[in-house]
Amino acid sequence: MRSERRTKKIRDVLERRQPDLTLVMENIHDPHNVSAMLRSADAVGIHEVQLVYTTQKFPRIGSKSSSSANKWIGRRKFSSIDECYETLRTEGFQIIATKLDESARQLYEFDLTRPTAFVFGNEHAGVTETAADQADATVYIPMMGMIQSLNVSVACAVTIYEALRQRMHAGGYDAPKFDGNNLDELIREWLKK
Amino acid sequence: MRSERRTKKIRDVLERRQPDLTLVMENIHDPHNVSAMLRSADAVGIHEVQLVYTTQKFPRIGSKSSSSANKWIGRRKFSSIDECYETLRTEGFQIIATKLDESARQLYEFDLTRPTAFVFGNEHAGVTETAADQADATVYIPMMGMIQSLNVSVACAVTIYEALRQRMHAGGYDAPKFDGNNLDELIREWLKK
Repeated sequence: MRSERRTKKIRDVLERRQPDLTLVMENIHDPHNVSAMLRSADAVGIHEVQLVYTTQKFPRIGSKSSSSANKWIGRRKFSSIDECYETLRTEGFQIIATKLDESARQLYEFDLTRPTAFVFGNEHAGVTETAADQADATVYIPMMGMIQSLNVSVACAVTIYEALRQRMHAGGYDAPKFDGNNLDELIREWLKK
Repeated sequence: MRSERRTKKIRDVLERRQPDLTLVMENIHDPHNVSAMLRSADAVGIHEVQLVYTTQKFPRIGSKSSSSANKWIGRRKFSSIDECYETLRTEGFQIIATKLDESARQLYEFDLTRPTAFVFGNEHAGVTETAADQADATVYIPMMGMIQSLNVSVACAVTIYEALRQRMHAGGYDAPKFDGNNLDELIREWLKK
């Protein structure tokens, strides 16, 4: 019984996974921020994130505990933004870097039902110039208060939950996005975790 | 010049403040969570939060630094949920407790342009039964992943940013919500901070 419930839960989650939504994490330093971002990513159904660590050492991410989201989010590592973006473009993603520059558009103006990769940068330095310049667009979260910044894990959650909102509304969680063979294969993989 | 810029910034922020949106923080334990929640609250224009600490000691909140949101968010303390809710109801708020119970409705179904108070509970215990039972409604954030919870400060940001989204769309930040006299008085108060 326990095993049937587990299989059902894994199937349900995989049927809602959004392989067409991802994060690029560029030099995010604090392991707590990385973990919080992966937890939010799991919650909105992100299947895999992209890690680009050029100025920072790759953070240790524990992934043994089932109660941690770390275990349920795939990670691809890239040695440069160029390499990462090229791969994502081949896969059809629009690449949106989170940076308040002159051409940045507000979060709620984007169509996030399209295949979308959001780029988040280091806590202190933000996304690199390369990451911003080579993205398809830059995005900012509206802020109405005295303090003009949010913690990166909070900004990430607000951003990807807007993608969830739009996708729920458009029926994006109603049918599996993996085809049947891939889905079965993933279920088998996850059952072994 | 510096002082003119400061006056303008304070006026701009106060003109966007949402006295009809608030948080009830019930026994939130970790000061980092409290600070993160106040930072998000400032960002969406919340003017004041309600603190109900019955099982936990009230956390120390530093509010001297201008770079901290703590300084710019008013705080009212209550010794019970009853007292807090009674005050909020007199002021016209709908009270929505964040709890996944049988009658909970999904975040995106609520009209958050109405005067709204969101109740967030302790990190481990969640909102108390009293706080949930006596609220007008309970709300949950959709979660599609393996892990069925979010950090309280992340949940808070996602929730109140949905209020910001709805209010921006409805023009809720386009005109001051304080009347002229109150606005001028608040500007004078904030200039002294």
